[in-house]
Amino acid sequence: MGRIENRLAELGESLPAAKSPVANYLGCKRTGDMLYVSGRVSRIRGEVGSELDLARAPEAAKEALLDILAIVKAEIDDLDSVISIEKLNGFVRSAASFTDQPKVIDGASDLLVEIFGDDGRHARTATGVAQLPFGAAVQLEMIMRLQGE
Amino acid sequence: MGRIENRLAELGESLPAAKSPVANYLGCKRTGDMLYVSGRVSRIRGEVGSELDLARAPEAAKEALLDILAIVKAEIDDLDSVISIEKLNGFVRSAASFTDQPKVIDGASDLLVEIFGDDGRHARTATGVAQLPFGAAVQLEMIMRLQGE
Amino acid sequence: MGRIENRLAELGESLPAAKSPVANYLGCKRTGDMLYVSGRVSRIRGEVGSELDLARAPEAAKEALLDILAIVKAEIDDLDSVISIEKLNGFVRSAASFTDQPKVIDGASDLLVEIFGDDGRHARTATGVAQLPFGAAVQLEMIMRLQGE
Repeated sequence: MGRIENRLAELGESLPAAKSPVANYLGCKRTGDMLYVSGRVSRIRGEVGSELDLARAPEAAKEALLDILAIVKAEIDDLDSVISIEKLNGFVRSAASFTDQPKVIDGASDLLVEIFGDDGRHARTATGVAQLPFGAAVQLEMIMRLQGE
Repeated sequence: MGRIENRLAELGESLPAAKSPVANYLGCKRTGDMLYVSGRVSRIRGEVGSELDLARAPEAAKEALLDILAIVKAEIDDLDSVISIEKLNGFVRSAASFTDQPKVIDGASDLLVEIFGDDGRHARTATGVAQLPFGAAVQLEMIMRLQGE
Repeated sequence: MGRIENRLAELGESLPAAKSPVANYLGCKRTGDMLYVSGRVSRIRGEVGSELDLARAPEAAKEALLDILAIVKAEIDDLDSVISIEKLNGFVRSAASFTDQPKVIDGASDLLVEIFGDDGRHARTATGVAQLPFGAAVQLEMIMRLQGE
């Protein structure tokens, strides 16, 4: 078990089984040293601000992040070859009056920094949308930099 | 006619006339070997899940993809210089209860793989939004890798 | 004062104080020569097409752009090291019937070209969303190319 997975264990987290994409695309695609990770939705469903409250919603972001890390591990073998997290985009399925999308996506941003330290600090956009695949509460996508081949 | 356009003809598809951006921006922008393609909306209008049903919506994604390829051809001259498709983002104008965004964007993902083979396999995010420019059903944007200059 | 800030002054614009991100992420992240800029929302609030009309909404896009440039300046010191604007993504908080998102984001695109000239011409996506952080009217994010280190 590598450094990053040890760190996850210290934090009391573990990776779920890597889920395959539901259609004709990849979980992530490497281009040079950059890795584009496909959008992943949380298993936690519901509209944030009505069906799901702000106290619980960051858990959905954290869950989607762990799913992403599981997929990345399955594709690149070893999370220790992640050099840094460049960009995180978070879509929050939002009730009409819900405007705290940043606090929801913090559930993923905070964990990234806990896991990867300063290299986990990233540019980010947190946006509100009316609907997400499968009625999920949160969807995340990411760009990472990997060690050179 | 190059390899990729021959492949399109085999598939019974052809490129529309390349539409110019509607404002002060570019259809796509090259940076090194990467090509960022601007968002394109389908000519098919309507909210998916109410005005437009799931059977027809993937056609809107396919239509937006062909528009994108027409623009890319106009800018880089020859689609054969596309090395691979890195990332596809699809926004589906979704009725409040519509959660099958991935099946809609499959209309574009499937065609990319038919055209470009394994190099057409890409990372992807399919998201639901409440409204799109001109009331379109689907909006796509893409990142491609091109042959080095 | 550098060339780009002189140009801003000629245009009658000035940079606001750089606002810090509201959570555990960065205002922008450099990876090689690329700079990923985090999403920024306009101080102008309201739903475009209902609370805010099309005449005023481009001002919100311009405002978010100036905020972004202030952050970039704070991080890279000198806006003259921006080589070009690669990609702009604009999210417009849209009333159900509002479909003129491109005209709103023109408020940012036009200013980018006025400031940076041809290097400011960029790929772009303008999308409609139901809600944004803090109820803002517009959210922008950007990818820039910087001079090599």
